[in-house]
Amino acid sequence: MRPGTDIRVTYRLSGEAAEADALAHAIAYEQTVELPAAQIDGTPAAANVGRIEAIVPDPEVPGAQRACIAYPAALASAQLGQLFNLLYGNISMYRGVRLLKLTLPDALLTHFRGPRFGIEGVRRLTGVYGRPLLATAVKPRGAATSELASVVEAFARGGGDIVKDDQNLVHAGFDEFRVHVDACADAVERANAVSGRQCLYLPHLAGTDEELARRAEFVRRRGLRGVLMCPLVLGLDRARALAEAYQLLFMAHPALTGAYTRGRREGIAPAILLGTLFRLAGADVSVFPTPGGRFEVTSAACTAIATALAAPLGNLVASLPAPAGGIQVSQVPKLAAGYGTEAVWLIGGALRGDTRGIAVATRALLSAMNAHFEPRQEPPETTPPSACELPGTGVTGPAQSLLRAGTDFQWFARENQRYKSTQALPFRGVRRVELIGKRGESCHFELRYFELEPGGYTSREKHLHTHVLIGARGHGTVLMGEEHIALHPDDIAYIAPWRVHQLRNEGDRPFGFYCIVDRERDRPLAP
Amino acid sequence: MRPGTDIRVTYRLSGEAAEADALAHAIAYEQTVELPAAQIDGTPAAANVGRIEAIVPDPEVPGAQRACIAYPAALASAQLGQLFNLLYGNISMYRGVRLLKLTLPDALLTHFRGPRFGIEGVRRLTGVYGRPLLATAVKPRGAATSELASVVEAFARGGGDIVKDDQNLVHAGFDEFRVHVDACADAVERANAVSGRQCLYLPHLAGTDEELARRAEFVRRRGLRGVLMCPLVLGLDRARALAEAYQLLFMAHPALTGAYTRGRREGIAPAILLGTLFRLAGADVSVFPTPGGRFEVTSAACTAIATALAAPLGNLVASLPAPAGGIQVSQVPKLAAGYGTEAVWLIGGALRGDTRGIAVATRALLSAMNAHFEPRQEPPETTPPSACELPGTGVTGPAQSLLRAGTDFQWFARENQRYKSTQALPFRGVRRVELIGKRGESCHFELRYFELEPGGYTSREKHLHTHVLIGARGHGTVLMGEEHIALHPDDIAYIAPWRVHQLRNEGDRPFGFYCIVDRERDRPLAP
Repeated sequence: MRPGTDIRVTYRLSGEAAEADALAHAIAYEQTVELPAAQIDGTPAAANVGRIEAIVPDPEVPGAQRACIAYPAALASAQLGQLFNLLYGNISMYRGVRLLKLTLPDALLTHFRGPRFGIEGVRRLTGVYGRPLLATAVKPRGAATSELASVVEAFARGGGDIVKDDQNLVHAGFDEFRVHVDACADAVERANAVSGRQCLYLPHLAGTDEELARRAEFVRRRGLRGVLMCPLVLGLDRARALAEAYQLLFMAHPALTGAYTRGRREGIAPAILLGTLFRLAGADVSVFPTPGGRFEVTSAACTAIATALAAPLGNLVASLPAPAGGIQVSQVPKLAAGYGTEAVWLIGGALRGDTRGIAVATRALLSAMNAHFEPRQEPPETTPPSACELPGTGVTGPAQSLLRAGTDFQWFARENQRYKSTQALPFRGVRRVELIGKRGESCHFELRYFELEPGGYTSREKHLHTHVLIGARGHGTVLMGEEHIALHPDDIAYIAPWRVHQLRNEGDRPFGFYCIVDRERDRPLAP
Repeated sequence: MRPGTDIRVTYRLSGEAAEADALAHAIAYEQTVELPAAQIDGTPAAANVGRIEAIVPDPEVPGAQRACIAYPAALASAQLGQLFNLLYGNISMYRGVRLLKLTLPDALLTHFRGPRFGIEGVRRLTGVYGRPLLATAVKPRGAATSELASVVEAFARGGGDIVKDDQNLVHAGFDEFRVHVDACADAVERANAVSGRQCLYLPHLAGTDEELARRAEFVRRRGLRGVLMCPLVLGLDRARALAEAYQLLFMAHPALTGAYTRGRREGIAPAILLGTLFRLAGADVSVFPTPGGRFEVTSAACTAIATALAAPLGNLVASLPAPAGGIQVSQVPKLAAGYGTEAVWLIGGALRGDTRGIAVATRALLSAMNAHFEPRQEPPETTPPSACELPGTGVTGPAQSLLRAGTDFQWFARENQRYKSTQALPFRGVRRVELIGKRGESCHFELRYFELEPGGYTSREKHLHTHVLIGARGHGTVLMGEEHIALHPDDIAYIAPWRVHQLRNEGDRPFGFYCIVDRERDRPLAP
């Protein structure tokens, strides 16, 4: 026994009962060492073979068996992709093997951060408590941008909580994406300004793999708090990494999941895929079809997904289930009873098809919903102002081969940026030019030029990432810890991790320097 | 009709025949606009609805129907992920809908580069013609690194062509990955040095999404030519992008594909997923189970995959099918007849289980294979020796806070380095100072200063990593592709990936510039 360190799974085996032993044995080797027992037993690799703990008749499917197998947690390699592969990779090609249950040990769970916001965070962002959240989709693809934006605005003005792009809404180029997202973000901001509420607009994050980061960054810089993503289209761990890198609320869409969840003989139980695995991928909200709409699904499967999204899972916070897929207004009592308070109702066509218009239909639906709950509203959380890493740098356009230096350290096609100082990390008289790294250049660093006017100084701060400075214009002082170091042209300064530092110009002429930093870096802290 | 611009698909509909019309109609709306016809018809979005071209009885499955639907090519948004979503995203959750056939218009295909190497490229790299290639897998997970490396070496010495990591072989950390890949790369190099052949070792590219690029870059820098990847674990387009960015030969593994391909009522025909879609993702070799091994599959399905990998598909080159999954030595005649010359036979356990050892078993298998073909060997294409990244820089000592600039761009505590030029990548009159990055500084980049004496020039070269140059002393010329760009003090030049470049000093005074590069980078190649 390796209690507490194994991944424990239950598979339904639907072949001949007499062959269940052999099939369970085959799975235990296939998913781990992928060599016949004769080549494994007695070698060190034998410790990696799945251990069959029990084979019992399936209580739900006559004639089928259930095999419980324990895999060493290390076989998941602390990675979500490999966990998915371990659970079902090669045996997806077997007949009659369905993954029904999954228990993960803390030794593995500790490697997953899970949802960034979760139920609590989504409520903080929207300010809505005591009732389910109401969501809708921006569609159809093919409608004018202004029409799509008007869906966003009408829904938000009607009191809706989350409006997300349809998963079919995918833009070929970045500019189309930007125009669409800008229009919808403007629309939701207009509506929120009127309502005083915080309806969230979530663009669909899709695109060529190369462009996903750029689009995510745009969403984040645009001040939007999250995105819709299709984990099985992007890759389960790819979706996780994008949400994590850009600190985005992540609503997961079930496109392609039916290939796994459909049927009883093969595949993966919906609660594992749309519940546990999507939650491990960081989904704050998981969308799935609910009975009564366009998809044939069972209430039991939906309840199981909702349960898996909120069940204890290491230190991961709980996520919200989002029943969807053609919900009708008449289903309100059933949804209220079935999912309770902690859910997102995703309703598209029914609101849009209402002849009174989306805003009125949204209000009416909320009112019908509220009859089942005790809703309350609190002031939503908005983005805190950031300090030294300046907000929205306004950098646009492609990478360029040459930035020609003008007079006085001005570069053609690069703006000077000046920002108001904040109380947390005050600075003064700083001119900043983003030279390289913000326009999709393929390098792991950024090059900026800073210039301090006489009397100017940068924030006194510390961080994990380092700075490399090259003196360029005039001279000034670098404070590092207790040291005061003069920096003249072509002097090179290196500021080590967590070293408190500040640049100062105590002279009477401009002090300019290049600053190179890692592209991926932590945020500065006050000393 | 929109001939030549539509994506044409055939779905098998397995419900009641009387309901086939309604189901096809539902699919046409579900996959495109996702709103009821009443809300779409007569609006601009109606042009996006799938067009049902025919519904006919299925010739293979009594009672089933086949629906042919045409989608406008633009709905794929020039992206592989969105194509996958369009073909099967939401209807994966329908009952009784299986994707059987797919025809893609050139208007869409033009957005996909497809396999980088393809059949022709894989043969060029290995130097093997006129017979199938023989491949094996490095396993089992849990064996010592030296044992795994000995599998590589024995197979390569036995005359094998491609040895790839098992898809279960996934390393939690970068260092484990590096140690494993280094050991196997060393092993294959030793064997190739003896044999004069070019057996390819392909590591399994897996890891957290954040670390995939670093691992791919390491593989590339290690001089290896390709990787094994699981497209459905990583994400179909994620795998494509990784292969493309690092110019890697891409062997695709079928983990998780069974969720789609299994069965007849739902899912996706193997030829579309493992054939067309994987080829669009750039797979040079597509691995799939063949009959006679551990997986229940039909010869017809395998033949269809092989056909799809080589069928006309825009300007994409053909890929190699790699039958696998427990192939026995006795199957040689059947494999030879079934797949012909243009295939990769992936044989693991059978070689490993041979008591004579892997090298002898490999030789025996090749000899059995050769009896069916007329093999010939040509000199394989190898990586040219690199030059411009100078050898052993001899930098020692700790990181320093300040490098004070002396006269004439000399820094205290930094040596000037001069090296002899090589024939492959000649250069002349270059002084080089390693300023930051070689002494344990904690950053992902390095800062160097280069100075060219009058008449001096750097190597004309290209590489994946980028350069950022800051003009510092005098002036000179940057050649980028066909462009000649003057670089003066404080001009910033960015040299993009794979851009052929050279720095020259055609003046009569020294030309000095700073050069920032990623710390982890590939070796330069001659143009």
